[in-house]
Amino acid sequence: MSPTDLYPTRRFDEPRLIYRTEDPAVWGSAADGPLAQQHLDGHTQHGFTPVEQLLTPAELAAAQNEIEQLLHDPSLAGDERVVRERTTDEVRSVFDVHKISPFFAAMIRDDRIAGVARQILGSDVYVHQSRINYKPGFGGAPFEWHSDFETWHAEDGMPRMRAVSLSLAMTENYHFNGSLMIMPGSHQTFVSCIGETPADNHKASLVKQEIGTPDQASLRLLADKYGIHQFTGPAGSAVWFDSNCMHGSNGNITPFPRSNLFIVFNAIDNSLVEPFAADRPRPEYLGSRDWQVLN
Amino acid sequence: MSPTDLYPTRRFDEPRLIYRTEDPAVWGSAADGPLAQQHLDGHTQHGFTPVEQLLTPAELAAAQNEIEQLLHDPSLAGDERVVRERTTDEVRSVFDVHKISPFFAAMIRDDRIAGVARQILGSDVYVHQSRINYKPGFGGAPFEWHSDFETWHAEDGMPRMRAVSLSLAMTENYHFNGSLMIMPGSHQTFVSCIGETPADNHKASLVKQEIGTPDQASLRLLADKYGIHQFTGPAGSAVWFDSNCMHGSNGNITPFPRSNLFIVFNAIDNSLVEPFAADRPRPEYLGSRDWQVLN
Repeated sequence: MSPTDLYPTRRFDEPRLIYRTEDPAVWGSAADGPLAQQHLDGHTQHGFTPVEQLLTPAELAAAQNEIEQLLHDPSLAGDERVVRERTTDEVRSVFDVHKISPFFAAMIRDDRIAGVARQILGSDVYVHQSRINYKPGFGGAPFEWHSDFETWHAEDGMPRMRAVSLSLAMTENYHFNGSLMIMPGSHQTFVSCIGETPADNHKASLVKQEIGTPDQASLRLLADKYGIHQFTGPAGSAVWFDSNCMHGSNGNITPFPRSNLFIVFNAIDNSLVEPFAADRPRPEYLGSRDWQVLN
Repeated sequence: MSPTDLYPTRRFDEPRLIYRTEDPAVWGSAADGPLAQQHLDGHTQHGFTPVEQLLTPAELAAAQNEIEQLLHDPSLAGDERVVRERTTDEVRSVFDVHKISPFFAAMIRDDRIAGVARQILGSDVYVHQSRINYKPGFGGAPFEWHSDFETWHAEDGMPRMRAVSLSLAMTENYHFNGSLMIMPGSHQTFVSCIGETPADNHKASLVKQEIGTPDQASLRLLADKYGIHQFTGPAGSAVWFDSNCMHGSNGNITPFPRSNLFIVFNAIDNSLVEPFAADRPRPEYLGSRDWQVLN
C-alpha cells in the first residue's frame, strides 16, 4: 500500500462524499504563464477553463488531417490502443497519440498547451494519458458521469489531485451531438465509489464504465447543488478541466460526429505509485509510468 | 386500398424523397384564431411554433399534479396504454390521457390549445392521439429520428398532412436531458422508408422504432440542408409542430427527468381510412377512429 490515502474509494460498503481540502485546483500563479489571474480564479471556482480558439485554422486543418491518417493507419489495425464501439465496431478512441504521432508530440509541447498545464499545476509536467475520442453520428454511445481522478487514483496509483486535462475539439461541438458536460464546482468533492475493482477492469470500462461509477444519490446531490454546464464551440475550441470534475456526455443520434483530442498532464511530483484500489496498474497507454518531463 | 396515395412508403426497395406540394402546413388564417400572421408564417417556413408560456403557473401546477396521480393510478397498472422502458420497467408513456383524465379533457379544449389547432389546420379537429411521455434521468432512452406522419399514414391510414402536434413541457427542458430536436423545414420533404410493416409493429416500435425509420443518407441530407433546432424552456412552455417534421431526441444520462404532454390534432376532413402500408390499423389509443369534434 501507498502513502496516506486522502481519497479512499472502492473500499466501503456505502458511497461517501469527501471534501477536497489539501489539493488546490490551481498550483501556479499568473506570473508563471499564459493564463491571466481571472482565468486562474475561474479555474479554481468552476474546475475548468474554456478556450475559444486554441488552434489557428491552419493548425486545426493539420491536426484534422493527422487524425484522419491515424484512423486509417494499417499499422494500428490490431493495436490494443485502438478501442471500438461495442455494437458497430467503429473506432471510439485511439490512445497514446502523443507517442504514435510526431505531429501531436510537437503540438502538445507548445506553450499554449504544455505551458498552461505547467502553470495550472505549478510544476513540470508529463503526459499521463493521451487519446483521440470519436463519437460517431447515428448512435454514438454516452459516457456515464465520472471523475477521472477516481479511476486514476484507484487503478493507476495517482496519489493526489494535481493533474489537468485538455479536451480540444476536432469537430464542432453542438449541444446535441454528445458534447462534454461538467458539473461546475464538483471538483471540490470526491465521490468515493462502491464495488471492488475486477481484474483487468479497464477492458470493460473503456467501452462501458461500471466500476468507479458514482451512485445516483451522489450524482443527484451534486447536480442539484452545481447544475450542469455543457461545452459547445467550433473545431479548434478547447476546455481545460481538473482531474476531479464530475463529467460525462450523452449519446448522439444526430448525423454529426464528434471527435476531440484529450491530453492529461500530471505534475511530476504527483507521479504514480501503486494503485490504491486495484491489484496491478493498468497498461502504460492508459496510465503512463514513463514520466518524461515535457520541455 | 385507399384514395390516391401522395406519400407512398414501406413499398419500394430504395428510400426516396418526395416533395410535399399539395398540403400546406398552415390551412387557416390570422383572422381564424389566436396566432398572429407572423407566427403562422413561421410555422409555414419552419414547421413549428414555440410558445414561451402556454400555461399559467397555477394551471401548470394542477397539470403536474394530475400527471403524478396518473403515474400512480392503480387502475392503470396492467393497462396496455401504459408503456414501460425495456431495461428499467419505468413508465415511458401513458396514452389516451384526454380520455382517461377529465382534467386533460377540459384543458385541451381551451382556446389556447384546441383553438390554435383549429386555426393551423383551418378545420374542426379531433384528437388522433394523446400521451404523457416520461424520459427518466440516469439513462432515459433516445427516440430515433422519424416523421410522425410516416407512421400515421402507413399504420393508421391518415391520408394527408393535415395534423399538428402539441408538445407541452411538464418539466424543464434543458439541452442535456433529451429535449426535442427538429430539423427546421424538414416538414416539406417526405422520406419514403424501406421495409415492410410487420404484424403488430407498434408493440416493438413504441419501445424502439425499427420500421418507419428513415435511412441514414436521407437524414444526413436533411440535417445538412436544414440543421437541427433543439427546444429548451421551463415547464409550461410548448411547441406546436407539423405532422411531417423530422424529429427525435437523444438519451439522457443526467439526473434531471423530462416529461411532456403530447397531443395530436387531426382535421376532421383528414379522418383515417385504411392503413396505407399495414394489414390492419393500430389500436384505438394510438390512432383514434373515434373522431369526436372538439368544441
